[in-house]
Amino acid sequence: MRPADVIQTKRDRGELSRSQLEAFVSAAAKLEGSSWEKYHLSALLMAIYLNGMTPAETAYLTQAMADSGKRLDLSDMPPCRVDKHSTGGVGDKTSLVLGPLAAACGVHVPMMSGRGLGHSGGTLDKLESIPGFNVNLTEDQLRDALMDSGLAMIGQTADIAPADKTLYALRDVTATVESIPLITASILSKKLSEGIVGLVMDVKCGRGAFMKTREQSRALADSLVKVGTANGLKMSAFITAMDAPLGRYVGNSLEVIEAIETLKGNGPRDLTELSVKLAARMVKLADIADTDAEAEESVRSRLASGRGLEVFRETIAQQGGDPRVIDDYSRLPRTKTVVHVMTDRTGYITSIDAEKVGIASCVLGGGRTRAEDKIDPAVGIIVRAKPGERVSPEQSVFEVHYRDGAKLVEVMPMLASAFTVGDAAPAEEPLVLEEIA
Amino acid sequence: MRPADVIQTKRDRGELSRSQLEAFVSAAAKLEGSSWEKYHLSALLMAIYLNGMTPAETAYLTQAMADSGKRLDLSDMPPCRVDKHSTGGVGDKTSLVLGPLAAACGVHVPMMSGRGLGHSGGTLDKLESIPGFNVNLTEDQLRDALMDSGLAMIGQTADIAPADKTLYALRDVTATVESIPLITASILSKKLSEGIVGLVMDVKCGRGAFMKTREQSRALADSLVKVGTANGLKMSAFITAMDAPLGRYVGNSLEVIEAIETLKGNGPRDLTELSVKLAARMVKLADIADTDAEAEESVRSRLASGRGLEVFRETIAQQGGDPRVIDDYSRLPRTKTVVHVMTDRTGYITSIDAEKVGIASCVLGGGRTRAEDKIDPAVGIIVRAKPGERVSPEQSVFEVHYRDGAKLVEVMPMLASAFTVGDAAPAEEPLVLEEIA
Repeated sequence: MRPADVIQTKRDRGELSRSQLEAFVSAAAKLEGSSWEKYHLSALLMAIYLNGMTPAETAYLTQAMADSGKRLDLSDMPPCRVDKHSTGGVGDKTSLVLGPLAAACGVHVPMMSGRGLGHSGGTLDKLESIPGFNVNLTEDQLRDALMDSGLAMIGQTADIAPADKTLYALRDVTATVESIPLITASILSKKLSEGIVGLVMDVKCGRGAFMKTREQSRALADSLVKVGTANGLKMSAFITAMDAPLGRYVGNSLEVIEAIETLKGNGPRDLTELSVKLAARMVKLADIADTDAEAEESVRSRLASGRGLEVFRETIAQQGGDPRVIDDYSRLPRTKTVVHVMTDRTGYITSIDAEKVGIASCVLGGGRTRAEDKIDPAVGIIVRAKPGERVSPEQSVFEVHYRDGAKLVEVMPMLASAFTVGDAAPAEEPLVLEEIA
Repeated sequence: MRPADVIQTKRDRGELSRSQLEAFVSAAAKLEGSSWEKYHLSALLMAIYLNGMTPAETAYLTQAMADSGKRLDLSDMPPCRVDKHSTGGVGDKTSLVLGPLAAACGVHVPMMSGRGLGHSGGTLDKLESIPGFNVNLTEDQLRDALMDSGLAMIGQTADIAPADKTLYALRDVTATVESIPLITASILSKKLSEGIVGLVMDVKCGRGAFMKTREQSRALADSLVKVGTANGLKMSAFITAMDAPLGRYVGNSLEVIEAIETLKGNGPRDLTELSVKLAARMVKLADIADTDAEAEESVRSRLASGRGLEVFRETIAQQGGDPRVIDDYSRLPRTKTVVHVMTDRTGYITSIDAEKVGIASCVLGGGRTRAEDKIDPAVGIIVRAKPGERVSPEQSVFEVHYRDGAKLVEVMPMLASAFTVGDAAPAEEPLVLEEIA
């Protein structure tokens, strides 16, 4: 099979066969000795970007990408393994809240997460702000954690979906990232490798999200559900608003603190409600509850009883972290200095630009612009006034936790332009916009 | 300027700026030390293939590709330098006829040709079947030839449009060959390097041509005229039929013989008429004649007087070839053996498939499937019965000049299926379908 013939098929809007997709993926996993070169891959990626793929093609692509590496086989364990994945937002620490809550309800959550890139954060970076926390577990350690607390929070090893690594790096430099079938295959190939039976997707929508419009978000959610289902997963996808940051804390240590506060019952309403909603859907997909109401009731009771918090404490301990952070936030990395960005008038906050806040946190050192960048877990931003809240002059909107004065100077004008104040409170927008299942 | 931003512009159907196109081309000319890799080039080529380019973009691309290498500056010579270029056909030896005829009329023809690839032949290969003929002239030799006979027939040196070499090789393996703007830039960048003032294009159309339909041919002709004009060339483009081979002789020595016969006034009508038509347009673009009729009359008189034949004889001698081939075809490489493909019924030839004949000639050894293949100048096919001609059983349709019995066995069934016989003569189709200027 000549690469040019495969490329030509997609160029001419044809449907790629399973064997053509497998040839493409196996070349991406290992170019050495293959008749494919990177310039073949990138030409095909552009043809896919522009001409799309059918759900069947995307399903084969996803499967081939998962099969290009190690896939955990946990089929000897109870069939209640369900994970959640978010397409990335600002202040989105729901994984740290719903993982423990779902596990407390009896779900097995083998959560394999990524690192932050650009303005959106990553669960691994947040967890690693907990002193000692180890995201690299062996398969045996993972199995023990699932049988014990029900929750393991780990990183992707190099042998998970290696084809995705080549393709993602190539997409990044050839302007072929924003393709629904390619995003679908990238997300689901890694999730299939976890050996789960069900997946709840949180597709973020809005100016702080990768997908800016409802139509794009719906198309992605729809593709994820179709392709996940075709690959044997029980799927549910929520489209949720990501115009303002979720909760109030943005940054790594800061988000751990807010997640713990939420598990203690003191969380902000948006974060609490979204975490409960997503955890309940995980409980339902794990077949632990019969109805949505029963699933939600189950999650709320674990939140109220503090059982979710205890699971998080166990997980931290299981993975080598210092569980005392739960009760003593000073054990987390913190900056010594804080400044505030203030309002200059009376009124209501009408918007907070999540993307600008995310970029500001990244510039402060809390995120990466390139995959090899080191991050500073201590820095970040606390949103003191969220949309709909009343403010008066010289009231703090953003509390900036910084380490480097030069970076602070860089982010101040960004943050000054990241909120608007009006005379009237904005209409309250729902957080969960839609569910696709 | 990041490659991804340039690619993204075209991906999103934007117009590439002159500086973006220059960055792309200079990378193609020399990847070393550039921020572009081949995978960037191929992704952009696919985006161009699928989303097209405006005439302005194509004009800048063409200019940048010409400027990527050496451009002959002949502006100190008389401004009557006009060339012809064909998009490639089967049996198309018009260059060998019209070059001498146009030069005999006073046109300076610095003809830079290519080699054959696939089923279509190349002028250089045909010329090199003449013993001693040297297609590699220095600039001084070229200038002398133009001032002397008016005609030089040379190959492209490595320093002509080097960006085209990289891009063409990459297009060939990434299914991005058949793109009007990319074809336009490839052809015209090389022609601009000849230092000509005018160009006559022969865009072949039909089953033996690269462009199979009238619409495709018209789109290419239109693009060539627009982009050539934008780059300061006087342009004219003919769309001509290429369903059956042009003339009767296909193969390298064989086509030289037919070209010489045509210059002697004994040529087949289609080849003679097309050569006269194209040469006349060259005369007109060179501003040597005031009207089309005058230009054509001028060419016909040089054909009738034998002056065209004398120019060809001079050119052969100038370029180190043996001019005695003009009078003695046995001095050209010839095969020892010939077989015939016969009809088995009475009727009229209704079609000859130029592409099949071209492939058969290539398989016999007369052409290349890869650029590095060696060719055999002696082999080829003479079409003994052309469409519209009456045949009876066991009359020869193809006279096959072969060297290798195994290859003969391979081409016989091809040739047996390369013609059809019917009860009635087909309607005569015009050879020149359209002119675009």
